[in-house]
Amino acid sequence: MNHKIIRYILFRLITLIGLLMILPTIVAIIYSESKSFSVFLGVLITCIIVGSLGSRKKPENIVFYAKEGFVVTSLSWILLSVIGAIPFYLTGTIPNFVDALFETVSGFTTTGASILTAVDGMDYSVQFWRTFSHWIGGMGVLVFMIAIVPLADGYSMHLMRAEAPGPIVGKFVPKVKDTAKILYLIYFGITLVEIIALKISGLTLYESITLTFSTVGTGGFAVTNAGIGGYPIVSQAIIIIFMALCGVNFSVYYFLITKRPKEALRCDEMRWYFGVMMVSASLIAVNIYRAGITQTPFLSFHHAMFTTVSIMTTTGFGTLDFNVWPQFSRTLLFLLTLLGACAGSTGGGFKFSRLLIIFRTIKNELSFVVHPRSVKKVYMDGHSVESTTVKSVFNYLGIYLLIMCFSILLISMDGFSFETNVTAVAATLNNVGPGLGMVGTTGNFSQFSAFSKIVMMFDMLAGRLELLPMLILLSYKTWKK
Amino acid sequence: MNHKIIRYILFRLITLIGLLMILPTIVAIIYSESKSFSVFLGVLITCIIVGSLGSRKKPENIVFYAKEGFVVTSLSWILLSVIGAIPFYLTGTIPNFVDALFETVSGFTTTGASILTAVDGMDYSVQFWRTFSHWIGGMGVLVFMIAIVPLADGYSMHLMRAEAPGPIVGKFVPKVKDTAKILYLIYFGITLVEIIALKISGLTLYESITLTFSTVGTGGFAVTNAGIGGYPIVSQAIIIIFMALCGVNFSVYYFLITKRPKEALRCDEMRWYFGVMMVSASLIAVNIYRAGITQTPFLSFHHAMFTTVSIMTTTGFGTLDFNVWPQFSRTLLFLLTLLGACAGSTGGGFKFSRLLIIFRTIKNELSFVVHPRSVKKVYMDGHSVESTTVKSVFNYLGIYLLIMCFSILLISMDGFSFETNVTAVAATLNNVGPGLGMVGTTGNFSQFSAFSKIVMMFDMLAGRLELLPMLILLSYKTWKK
Repeated sequence: MNHKIIRYILFRLITLIGLLMILPTIVAIIYSESKSFSVFLGVLITCIIVGSLGSRKKPENIVFYAKEGFVVTSLSWILLSVIGAIPFYLTGTIPNFVDALFETVSGFTTTGASILTAVDGMDYSVQFWRTFSHWIGGMGVLVFMIAIVPLADGYSMHLMRAEAPGPIVGKFVPKVKDTAKILYLIYFGITLVEIIALKISGLTLYESITLTFSTVGTGGFAVTNAGIGGYPIVSQAIIIIFMALCGVNFSVYYFLITKRPKEALRCDEMRWYFGVMMVSASLIAVNIYRAGITQTPFLSFHHAMFTTVSIMTTTGFGTLDFNVWPQFSRTLLFLLTLLGACAGSTGGGFKFSRLLIIFRTIKNELSFVVHPRSVKKVYMDGHSVESTTVKSVFNYLGIYLLIMCFSILLISMDGFSFETNVTAVAATLNNVGPGLGMVGTTGNFSQFSAFSKIVMMFDMLAGRLELLPMLILLSYKTWKK
Repeated sequence: MNHKIIRYILFRLITLIGLLMILPTIVAIIYSESKSFSVFLGVLITCIIVGSLGSRKKPENIVFYAKEGFVVTSLSWILLSVIGAIPFYLTGTIPNFVDALFETVSGFTTTGASILTAVDGMDYSVQFWRTFSHWIGGMGVLVFMIAIVPLADGYSMHLMRAEAPGPIVGKFVPKVKDTAKILYLIYFGITLVEIIALKISGLTLYESITLTFSTVGTGGFAVTNAGIGGYPIVSQAIIIIFMALCGVNFSVYYFLITKRPKEALRCDEMRWYFGVMMVSASLIAVNIYRAGITQTPFLSFHHAMFTTVSIMTTTGFGTLDFNVWPQFSRTLLFLLTLLGACAGSTGGGFKFSRLLIIFRTIKNELSFVVHPRSVKKVYMDGHSVESTTVKSVFNYLGIYLLIMCFSILLISMDGFSFETNVTAVAATLNNVGPGLGMVGTTGNFSQFSAFSKIVMMFDMLAGRLELLPMLILLSYKTWKK
């Protein structure tokens, strides 16, 4: 293990976190929030000083393998969360540090699970930081660092592989740095367009910016107690569109920008993603309309669509409380929680591409039994998938299930209901946010014990980083000389 | 597809089912149950006539591949269930045929999930048939047929592979027929010893026989409303031992009989099975003792042990209602429901050997990331596992999860609770029987709609036959010319 390079990157990250605090500091100035201003400014200055001092000297030994990549990635996210929690704690917004940390982990991992019972009346700057964490975490802070910090291309790739969501890391252009830049440019573009669209639909600039952060990061923190249900239906519709867009593999946009629409359309995952979305939303619409949840078929479809997209993209926004919907809709939404969005998007979950690979492998296995002489490959987007990729997808499934089962068992010690425990773990591991029962749209995670909160923080980080980095950080083999 | 050979085997099976009816017919004579007697005798005679007529001529074309093996196996079990349900229906014990079929599928698949709200007062002969179905299904009816019916060895292997529980088919001796005979001899032996033990512990001969059928088949149908809780604690302890023994891979007994204790002890799966059993039972004992469920530490351990073994072996007997235990115990028991027993035992579930293979593959994957030059194999019982076996285990996991998720969604239309739906599917797919909520130890499956019952019948059969046969039966490719 190359400790020096790890330390170097972490100190550079601390500097970067300091720089990220500039925005909430400005918001504190605009809204004259003196206490929050001093907290953000204090953290900002401390981070920049500590970070700069620690990363003065570039390490000579630049040996950097996958192991280092995974360890740096998981440590970075933990560091990010710990520093990010300080403003919540010092401003007194969240007086318990474990709670503050839970909220911050939930923010950066774009989960949106909250321990707050109310968000009205919070300082604007703190609220801003809370939603800004979604935006930062959505694309990945290391991708951001790769884009702006001079690092050797060899280890950029390892960092990106560890942080990027999905089984196959898309490298659009030969240099990782350039790929990271392109990703962030697309991300900036989508962000800007949504802010403008929401502003036009009648929201304030502050609401437009913060809700956009929560949307494009597929996070789910709302800025009022009423949630998204309190906004005009046009604004809700805009949010549906942008949630759906941010759940798509970003390589699709890259192909569109570079005028290769054929390649963009060839994305199997995206077609399944939109297909499942439309079918699920329609089924839920019929189900809730027949149950009398909404007055008109149009409203049924609107709310069904909003909720389906919100869960599938792992955003977790709510216009209505789906916890009180008929069991069929609740169950379907739970299953979509497990599934998640597309790989290479800002969304979490198991990912459509993994499901497709598993589905096609099983289909091949069945046809192999029937016709033993037909050995078939698994295809995605018209190309055959390498057998190592197929293997890693199944390993991912195994790890995913083991983490889920252990987490459910551990948090069951708190004594809450089976439904609450299963869906709370599903909602955190898949970075969705709301589950069913106590952690439904109108509920929150505040009543869990500190131990359970730590378990779910692990789940959120593991889910966001696609499981391996957190496990490798904890594996004793990693630290053995 | 060789239709002639399939038809031939199915008609032979009908004859066999007729012969199996001899026992309940005798019981009906002993207890002078005239109506049940005439029903059993009628089915017996009809089966033997139809079966003999249909299988008069042995087909000349004996081409028999894996495909035919899977199709025959799944059709056999469906046929067995349909004919087996007739006595319940015609005697009026279960007036609804879907319910009668559910109870019979539950019997033969050794699930033990019941639609009956009370079993007291049922005819002795019908009750006998109900528990006898567990005994038949435990070892597998086709293994029985292989043992007694003259079939070519080539297709015996395909039949056995499709019916045998576990990822690796144990063939003790070169001839499949002899392996089947040895398996049934061990099974007979265990059965006989338990009957004698239960009789000595104070039960009636009828109770001893029927409960033994339910135990060694790891089924779980009880013969009184009070369940196993109504018997002396010594009888309960005997049942614990025999449940635990029948959850072990039967190859262990073969090695013991042939005086190869070293090979018997080398069984990794068995050691994990007993390890998880002791740890889980201890945790549950502490949990229920602290919650005040039982009066003394001894009783806590006894009931915790009984319930843990009952769930792990997928028997489903109950001495206490674990549905009212603390959430930690309930959750642990639910997770054990998913896991199940050892491969090559009469128990169901995902099986320990599969979990071990997945666990070790993941461990290798993690250490591969840390040390990329170390390519490791997966080991079981001191031998390396073939990569095709590892692949099929992961495929199994994928199919298992897909069936589970779809089933939960389908039965959620009935509107019962999340807990009820999830655990009902887990309890049927893993052939356990009781779940939580409405389908807990004191509950039953009667309130589900006919549609949900059909879904769960499919799950029970799919679970008992290790998923593939039922899927291949339904796959259109199987029937395409």
